[in-house]
Amino acid sequence: MGKHSLYQYGTIGSLMAGAMDGTGTIQEFLTHGDFGIGTMDGVDGELIVLDQEAYKASATGEVIKLGPLEKLPYGAIAFFNPDHTFTLKETLANEVVETKVIEAMKSKNLFAGVKISGVFDTMHVRAMPKQTPPYIRFSEVEQPEFTAHNIKGTLVGFYSPVLFHGTSVAGFHVHFISDDRTFGGHVLDYHVEDVKVEVQDYSELIQDFPKEDVFLEAEFDYSNIAEEISISE
Amino acid sequence: MGKHSLYQYGTIGSLMAGAMDGTGTIQEFLTHGDFGIGTMDGVDGELIVLDQEAYKASATGEVIKLGPLEKLPYGAIAFFNPDHTFTLKETLANEVVETKVIEAMKSKNLFAGVKISGVFDTMHVRAMPKQTPPYIRFSEVEQPEFTAHNIKGTLVGFYSPVLFHGTSVAGFHVHFISDDRTFGGHVLDYHVEDVKVEVQDYSELIQDFPKEDVFLEAEFDYSNIAEEISISE
Repeated sequence: MGKHSLYQYGTIGSLMAGAMDGTGTIQEFLTHGDFGIGTMDGVDGELIVLDQEAYKASATGEVIKLGPLEKLPYGAIAFFNPDHTFTLKETLANEVVETKVIEAMKSKNLFAGVKISGVFDTMHVRAMPKQTPPYIRFSEVEQPEFTAHNIKGTLVGFYSPVLFHGTSVAGFHVHFISDDRTFGGHVLDYHVEDVKVEVQDYSELIQDFPKEDVFLEAEFDYSNIAEEISISE
Repeated sequence: MGKHSLYQYGTIGSLMAGAMDGTGTIQEFLTHGDFGIGTMDGVDGELIVLDQEAYKASATGEVIKLGPLEKLPYGAIAFFNPDHTFTLKETLANEVVETKVIEAMKSKNLFAGVKISGVFDTMHVRAMPKQTPPYIRFSEVEQPEFTAHNIKGTLVGFYSPVLFHGTSVAGFHVHFISDDRTFGGHVLDYHVEDVKVEVQDYSELIQDFPKEDVFLEAEFDYSNIAEEISISE
């Protein structure tokens, strides 16, 4: 797997449809990259991989460093080597930042990685509470939200081409972790203040799947999945 | 790339939406497998790769052996090593055969390869006529159909999980080529008579993309793409 590969374990669609049991280990996942996002066993919180370290932002508001044997049902990861870098030194909303990232990307028709580090004026996140079987649909889970102001940290995540909505989330799917590792989650919206933006173009996606019967033998109901992903992510 | 990888170059969705220019070469495509399907520059005919040889079944009804420098906009290919093999020695319609293939597969939630070789009671195919820019939508192209009876040949293709409808074709996408290399195309329906069925399970999909500006800079309209794929494939 080269510099320009994005590796995805499981799919957002299957996760949304109930494939929430942790199957792959963090240890195995980290062999595919040093920079990524995902969720943990039972959709327990928001996974952030930064500089080869894996963290979970929990629905309780805590951020926990993850051990190698903890399991995930879904994640995307890459070895981060930026192709494009720029700085932003003013208060800008996420929509504006996203437009600039898309302009920097090689193509809207390819996957890309985005890393934004520095000071954020506001950061609004949510985190999934751990579910237990029998799982309800992801879109029906109530998720606590948290907001921080004037916070130092890093936004980590990926852009997916619109055609991949279903297996991934079309557009940006990004998580956040603060520099002091006390605040994080799935990013809803934000304003940057003084940040470095780094963008990586991927030429290919490696789509891997859980090997366990809980995934292989599942009967998924994907009938409304595109809308459920749009609502939930 | 291991025995259990399926490699896809481009996507069905982008092809349907107008990414019909040949970009990758047959030579490069064949480095990813010895067994596959696709279409050629300008959606010219139906590509069949069997035993590392590439053929095009044209809308004229001809089957042509392809040279290494001919270009394709879309294809899926793998190194074929069957995990499951069975024989069928009676007249059975494709729906029945497909049910047996799905039963043999490791999982409906993974990609699979299917190769059916022997005598077919009937084989009904179509082949795309070559288009020239500006391309109309794939679903609007009129495609000649051909039927053969009591024909010896090989059906080649892949099963994709339903969640991948859009980038691939959900369910079976299969092409056919006769043993004497005079008849072939995109399979619409068939009856087997006396065949060997071989099935390969894939644990991962490697999704690659054209590197050319004609793809990278394209503005695709995917608004009705799932339905267009269902109608056309």
